[in-house]
Amino acid sequence: ADPPAAASATGNVTPTGHTTTVAVTADDMRFSPAEITVPAGDRLVIDLTNSDQRRHDLVLSNGAKTGTVARGATVRLDAGIIGGDLDGWCSLTGHRMAGMTLKVTTTGGHTHGADAARTAEKEQTARDATAPVTPTGEVHRIDLTVQEVGGRWTYNGTVPGPVLRGRVGDTFEITLRNEGTVDHGVDFHAGALAPDRPMRPIDPGEQLTYRFTATKAGIWMYHCSTMPMLLHIANGMYGAVIIDPPDLPAVDREFVLVQSEFYGDDQETPTAVAFNGRANQYDEHPLTATAGNRVRFWVLNAGPNRTSAFHVVGAQFDTVWYEGRRQLDPADPGGAQVLALTPAAGGYVETVLPEPGHYPFVSHVMVDAERGAHGTIEVTR
Amino acid sequence: ADPPAAASATGNVTPTGHTTTVAVTADDMRFSPAEITVPAGDRLVIDLTNSDQRRHDLVLSNGAKTGTVARGATVRLDAGIIGGDLDGWCSLTGHRMAGMTLKVTTTGGHTHGADAARTAEKEQTARDATAPVTPTGEVHRIDLTVQEVGGRWTYNGTVPGPVLRGRVGDTFEITLRNEGTVDHGVDFHAGALAPDRPMRPIDPGEQLTYRFTATKAGIWMYHCSTMPMLLHIANGMYGAVIIDPPDLPAVDREFVLVQSEFYGDDQETPTAVAFNGRANQYDEHPLTATAGNRVRFWVLNAGPNRTSAFHVVGAQFDTVWYEGRRQLDPADPGGAQVLALTPAAGGYVETVLPEPGHYPFVSHVMVDAERGAHGTIEVTR
Amino acid sequence: ADPPAAASATGNVTPTGHTTTVAVTADDMRFSPAEITVPAGDRLVIDLTNSDQRRHDLVLSNGAKTGTVARGATVRLDAGIIGGDLDGWCSLTGHRMAGMTLKVTTTGGHTHGADAARTAEKEQTARDATAPVTPTGEVHRIDLTVQEVGGRWTYNGTVPGPVLRGRVGDTFEITLRNEGTVDHGVDFHAGALAPDRPMRPIDPGEQLTYRFTATKAGIWMYHCSTMPMLLHIANGMYGAVIIDPPDLPAVDREFVLVQSEFYGDDQETPTAVAFNGRANQYDEHPLTATAGNRVRFWVLNAGPNRTSAFHVVGAQFDTVWYEGRRQLDPADPGGAQVLALTPAAGGYVETVLPEPGHYPFVSHVMVDAERGAHGTIEVTR
Ligand SMILES: [Cu+2]
Ligand SMILES: [Cu+2]
Ligand SMILES: [Cu+2]
Ligand SMILES: [Cu+2]
Ligand SMILES: [Cu+2]
Ligand SMILES: [Cu+2]
Ligand code: NA
Ligand code: NA
Ligand code: NA
Ligand code: NA
Ligand code: NA
Ligand code: NA
Ligand SMILES: [Zn+2]
Ligand SMILES: [Zn+2]
Ligand SMILES: [Zn+2]
Ligand SMILES: [Zn+2]
Ligand SMILES: [Zn+2]
Ligand SMILES: [Zn+2]
Ligand SMILES: [Zn+2]
Ligand SMILES: [Zn+2]
Ligand SMILES: [Zn+2]
Repeated sequence: ADPPAAASATGNVTPTGHTTTVAVTADDMRFSPAEITVPAGDRLVIDLTNSDQRRHDLVLSNGAKTGTVARGATVRLDAGIIGGDLDGWCSLTGHRMAGMTLKVTTTGGHTHGADAARTAEKEQTARDATAPVTPTGEVHRIDLTVQEVGGRWTYNGTVPGPVLRGRVGDTFEITLRNEGTVDHGVDFHAGALAPDRPMRPIDPGEQLTYRFTATKAGIWMYHCSTMPMLLHIANGMYGAVIIDPPDLPAVDREFVLVQSEFYGDDQETPTAVAFNGRANQYDEHPLTATAGNRVRFWVLNAGPNRTSAFHVVGAQFDTVWYEGRRQLDPADPGGAQVLALTPAAGGYVETVLPEPGHYPFVSHVMVDAERGAHGTIEVTR
Repeated sequence: ADPPAAASATGNVTPTGHTTTVAVTADDMRFSPAEITVPAGDRLVIDLTNSDQRRHDLVLSNGAKTGTVARGATVRLDAGIIGGDLDGWCSLTGHRMAGMTLKVTTTGGHTHGADAARTAEKEQTARDATAPVTPTGEVHRIDLTVQEVGGRWTYNGTVPGPVLRGRVGDTFEITLRNEGTVDHGVDFHAGALAPDRPMRPIDPGEQLTYRFTATKAGIWMYHCSTMPMLLHIANGMYGAVIIDPPDLPAVDREFVLVQSEFYGDDQETPTAVAFNGRANQYDEHPLTATAGNRVRFWVLNAGPNRTSAFHVVGAQFDTVWYEGRRQLDPADPGGAQVLALTPAAGGYVETVLPEPGHYPFVSHVMVDAERGAHGTIEVTR
Repeated sequence: ADPPAAASATGNVTPTGHTTTVAVTADDMRFSPAEITVPAGDRLVIDLTNSDQRRHDLVLSNGAKTGTVARGATVRLDAGIIGGDLDGWCSLTGHRMAGMTLKVTTTGGHTHGADAARTAEKEQTARDATAPVTPTGEVHRIDLTVQEVGGRWTYNGTVPGPVLRGRVGDTFEITLRNEGTVDHGVDFHAGALAPDRPMRPIDPGEQLTYRFTATKAGIWMYHCSTMPMLLHIANGMYGAVIIDPPDLPAVDREFVLVQSEFYGDDQETPTAVAFNGRANQYDEHPLTATAGNRVRFWVLNAGPNRTSAFHVVGAQFDTVWYEGRRQLDPADPGGAQVLALTPAAGGYVETVLPEPGHYPFVSHVMVDAERGAHGTIEVTR
């Protein structure tokens, strides 16, 4: 069996310095207990014993995973500092669908419905999906520091890395520093240049400057350029650069969602698929909008491998902009239900959310929605 | 091993009340006998003995399947009432391609070439793929009843559910009744509304009314909205709503094809992929057209997971309408060989079939064509 | 274990008549030796012993493969006549990514950088990716001979078969001869006609004439039409026909890349993914261009199964033509990073390579890039 992977840091909760240790048993295609409660800020350690006739594993939505556990064996999983609720499941084929799930809930209390409390906890535990405002100025200087955090490889400590934004004609001057333990680099699809020098792998402790001018609009992927890229991307090294089209209309709400996959032993079958780096995070902490709002979703599929079929339940896209060009306008009599994105493709869609309620968004590749490519927009009056 | 799945009802043949029982052996990567004959209307029961060194299963194109059968074991498969010819195969990796197939033929006789007989039998055994005429009136009232039939979960007893059709501006008033044994619901992509109430799961015995106004043209998916949706869709709960674009030209023949997958134990690997709910049904009972006809295919990919590459052998698409917008017109000098559809995406293509003959249509994802995403259009003078 | 597959012929090197035999051990997730040197033109035979605790195999980028090798077993692999450098790897899940690779280098020396030598060797060892010039005349007579070469099934001895080219309105008259050992046929997406006669399987020793007129522009797939097509395509029977759009502008460099997959035992998981028939061949022998050149890539995805996300590292597409229609023009403010192609889909993209250097091209489905859907464009001043 492969060694357990440590978890990534979960939001920016203040660590308590305490550790909660829980014994969990896998038996009869169930985890028991199936729900664990842990004080927010505690480190969670799970001792998983497999008492079943077949093999199982345990994957958490923060990226921690045990690897496959043989019959009769016990493994210890360090799930890291817990900042908010997590989903857990067995990633062996069919087990999650058969109900083999585990819920991790934090105390201190997430009272869904009490807006002030939820807003506070959301800040702590879900990645802010609001698109950054396009900055003024024509030169953007950005520090991008490779940090290995909780078993993931990151740019600036988060998966995905920061969302960059600018206009056609702007210049980006990136200072890449490698504070990791192996070679890393970066490749910006947003610029056109010879890869030889700017995309070269740099040693731990080194830095390089990567300068590009954005001559074309789009939502462009960036990612680690070091081989094997499959591994570096699967471990978390990617992000988005938005270059605004010249005529981009203002909207009421503008979000950025980067879909990506996480893997265990099997490079064909993801253990989790997420928007903005954590499975199902926007179910616990929904995006918000007001009824009647025009909402724009910038979506980038970072892959590394799966095609996305981005869909908002209860909504229809009247605007689709895909890989450099408008495909659908509000004046068209037709509408779209899906934005289809292979790995490294991106675009935006717009919709008007007609009334208050909860609108899920998914990859309509349903097995990936089950793996966590799922979230919610909460629309209020 | 998992329990065998019973078959879905096969067309509307009149049951004879008799049962035909056949012993089949799997050995040396072959079924023997490899062809079974059964009177139309009989129930077919297969006692499958695996005498081979490795494991096998048996999947029929009506959805019946044994599950994996260990070496030396015998399992009984109730294949249901047989209304027409079926394909069978072992779904273990590579076995079908290696020739591990079984043919079920009905007596009373399908004489391909004798048109009157074939038309009659087609009515009995293949789903009518002709697009419904757009109804008059601006309000359409439809009953949608969840029925669990032969191991599948259905809307109104068929997989896919009924094709609904209307115009931009029309209102649909759906009465959903749950006559199943577990919670079910419905989600219409064709309308925009808050999911909270209309898409809620309802208990067996309950009903709800789902009202939406179609404001955008397209071929829209509907499907069960109850978690886990992967399971409810894989079990058969989906269909299409066509909202005509305002300027939709008349054509000579207009078909609707809903592609979808069926699964056994492994949620990554379908046991069958079908157009309109049964593998290869339009090979036995072809769609028909006349040479020189302009034919329109509305295609919806219900998934749940696979991308479709819809293609008609011998034909080129001169018209492509995809997710709300025309992509290709007859006046364009270019043509298209594929309509690419992720799960939940849809559109239509048109072609003029130039001369009499048999034109296969497939998903050009070849492993799925082998699994049954294959049919034929028979073009006569 | 399945029997080892013999390799296909590698380029048109002159055979020496000699055989080089090398013993290789698989142990501890490594091949040793990890690099083999063989005189160009020699036949290479590898005796692979698996001394590891787990199973392994060996796949070479010319298509030779051992099949799975049990612990303690030794198998002999006939790798065929070696015309140039090859990559080898274990295709079991994760093993290649973990570094289980083998390099085959030819002596006589590939001095990368010495242009004359490289050009010569490139002729010998990489498929020429330059698009053929559109021939004059309105009727094109082509011989297409099915030849089973080194374990692959081919048209005219190469995988892919020859690239055909013409204009809208041209007629192609194909003489198909079957010099193979089983039935074969051909299906040209470039023409519209009843499949019954021209696409019928023909016996070994037979021939047929296939005549079609190209009425629509595009890059169209052709492939064997004999069932099971999954097998015939996976074994190498496909190619591209380019029908120029009437207004196709001249560019500085024009390439054709046909992506396809190769399979071992598992029809779900390719052992290799290649451009123009051999994994990574354009990394060893790059495509060439001059800085400032406008370069056009015609790309066809022959599948049989995987979606491609064609991308050029360091470049942005300012022109996209997909399945019959221009999607993006240089005048558009947006650019594209990916050309998305399901199996049987094709198109072209254009970019201006801004400065000297090495620009990789990939399918950005990263697991397929790792399997060999990877090459390089070398841009000089
Ligand atoms: Cu990296
Ligand atoms: Cu849905
Ligand atoms: Cu359902
Ligand atoms: Cu074909
Ligand atoms: Cu063939
Ligand atoms: Cu890249
Ligand atoms: Na919906
Ligand atoms: Na979910
Ligand atoms: Na064709
Ligand atoms: Na078939
Ligand atoms: Na790039
Ligand atoms: Na590679
Ligand atoms: Zn399990
Ligand atoms: Zn790196
Ligand atoms: Zn990239
Ligand atoms: Zn079998
Ligand atoms: Zn249900
Ligand atoms: Zn849906
Ligand atoms: Zn290995
Ligand atoms: Zn053939
Ligand atoms: Zn084809």
